[in-house]
Amino acid sequence: MTEDCDWLQVPPAPLDADAGRAAAERQGQLTKPPGALGRLEGVAERLAAMQGRTCPAIERIQIAVFAGDHGVVEEGISRFPQSVTAQMLANFASGGAAIAVLAGELGAELEVINLGTAHAVPGAASIREVALGPGTANLAREAAMTPGQLEQALNVGRQCAERARRGGAQLFIGGEMGIGNTTAAAALACSILERPAVELAGPGTGLDAPGVQHKAAVIEHALALHAGVRGDALGSLGALGGFEIAGLAGSYIAAAQIGLPVLVDGFISTAAALVATRLCPGAEQWFFYGHASAEPGHARLLEALAAEPLLGLEMRLGEGSGAAMAVPLLRLACQLHAGMATFAEAGVSGEVG
Amino acid sequence: MTEDCDWLQVPPAPLDADAGRAAAERQGQLTKPPGALGRLEGVAERLAAMQGRTCPAIERIQIAVFAGDHGVVEEGISRFPQSVTAQMLANFASGGAAIAVLAGELGAELEVINLGTAHAVPGAASIREVALGPGTANLAREAAMTPGQLEQALNVGRQCAERARRGGAQLFIGGEMGIGNTTAAAALACSILERPAVELAGPGTGLDAPGVQHKAAVIEHALALHAGVRGDALGSLGALGGFEIAGLAGSYIAAAQIGLPVLVDGFISTAAALVATRLCPGAEQWFFYGHASAEPGHARLLEALAAEPLLGLEMRLGEGSGAAMAVPLLRLACQLHAGMATFAEAGVSGEVG
Repeated sequence: MTEDCDWLQVPPAPLDADAGRAAAERQGQLTKPPGALGRLEGVAERLAAMQGRTCPAIERIQIAVFAGDHGVVEEGISRFPQSVTAQMLANFASGGAAIAVLAGELGAELEVINLGTAHAVPGAASIREVALGPGTANLAREAAMTPGQLEQALNVGRQCAERARRGGAQLFIGGEMGIGNTTAAAALACSILERPAVELAGPGTGLDAPGVQHKAAVIEHALALHAGVRGDALGSLGALGGFEIAGLAGSYIAAAQIGLPVLVDGFISTAAALVATRLCPGAEQWFFYGHASAEPGHARLLEALAAEPLLGLEMRLGEGSGAAMAVPLLRLACQLHAGMATFAEAGVSGEVG
Repeated sequence: MTEDCDWLQVPPAPLDADAGRAAAERQGQLTKPPGALGRLEGVAERLAAMQGRTCPAIERIQIAVFAGDHGVVEEGISRFPQSVTAQMLANFASGGAAIAVLAGELGAELEVINLGTAHAVPGAASIREVALGPGTANLAREAAMTPGQLEQALNVGRQCAERARRGGAQLFIGGEMGIGNTTAAAALACSILERPAVELAGPGTGLDAPGVQHKAAVIEHALALHAGVRGDALGSLGALGGFEIAGLAGSYIAAAQIGLPVLVDGFISTAAALVATRLCPGAEQWFFYGHASAEPGHARLLEALAAEPLLGLEMRLGEGSGAAMAVPLLRLACQLHAGMATFAEAGVSGEVG
């Protein structure tokens, strides 16, 4: 790699432990039995440490959807044709996709970044075009990305997180779109975690059992081809990842470095979060996990990251949609934390004895 | 029982199966892989059948918190003194309690109904006072309620659901407050389900292990005392329940009868939902379950009802707070269902072959 990836080595921003402690103390004084708000208490306390104030708030949210195509689709690993990537980009821009609806309802800013699709995006005025190529190369036959493409994709992600921060975002959600990307994400995660393909290959958008078996065989073949990068996060990302996965990983790392809380989505996003934590240890302190995906491999990734997602709705759409669904939980956790009365304020008796 | 409880026999309102089918058909046309929105799809389809339209919406929400004290506290089964019930009622009214904060953030109407506390509620102008007595009798020594109190409490719940409907509510949440009510709810559920106390007794607001053991012994004693009502939902409710639990049960039954969707909260509320489904078979078609409580017995109740809650945040506060946390999920499910483009509208290709 060239020196343009040196920024990956910058450590994550420190948390404000004093603010976290003050928030925990406040939680103990609110009119409820200690711990009765369950995981919402920890969410408020973590956000307090991230924002450096006793009562945090999540008003402004940036959702960035990274898109790219995958050469590996020529191995027949997806139920949907590659043209869908570009078509869905247009659907993001025109407001008809799930993440566009959710962004509107949540009052979140939505940015769509095309890092390289096989087909042109029809009428895509509002999409940020980067164009690293017409999708990645076929990872089952060669490295998915050149070193230059990898570096650029990571930087696109970095710039995206920095734009979000400049725009005043208090929470960053990365989403993705790319036909074939559960294959790339599974291969990437298998290579980093040194696990066999069958543990992470799943139905994606809807493969049947023989389809999943074939997908696992393609991944196993790719892992053998790229055995030299096994256990190496950056090498695995270049050989087996995708433009959008590298963009996500870059955005997560930069967000942690600039102290912008991240709400991670599902299977693909968590594979990118795995890369981020390997390249920038401690980045995980800035991550929340929105939901447990129905894609079976997600549970393995979450386990590897000791991550506990907030929701379990059996979603498997990507786009950042599962993370977006968890936004109201973060907001309500903050609002309860700031808005509830203390025992003293309300004149409510504490525990006996 | 007098004839004033005859209304309990009225069957629940029918669902609109055509609207449910039309909603399922629409889900299949939206720009996503089939099933990719997971449980949100079923939520939208069920609400469509409840509201009788292809695209349902949840704008107006009624939250009713039923409160009452419990004579069984004299057995030493709670960490908090009985005075807290009345103090918390004042905290609901003044906006400092969790459910008051949540109602405000969700734009929900909050009604607080005092069915009978041991202490006067300080400065409680906005609370609906019913006053069936200074709390129930000690269920470990006698029937918790007289037949007249039981009938009145059920009717208070019924009137509450009817007020909600008249006010235009599209969703009903019942909450509760009553020091000692996990003991009453556990005893009630054990009696209906014919299970031993140890299976449903838990820490409530924070008992330690010996405390839970003592609580289970108190419940076991009460179950033996009231063995005559074992398996009988109405009899068990009168002998072992509480004013607020009967109010909840009455509100759930009436909501199902008038076709008002219900979002059930945690342990206490689910015990009331169990009563409702036993007294009014089919009422469960109108119920959603907001969250899985950290109170261990909740899992047993949910299992007995074949209920799958939307959230699992380890909350155990009551007040309707876990149900309130799930409201954004119902709303976003509706908004995705109505707002997403179809494949045809967006010009997105469907699955291959």
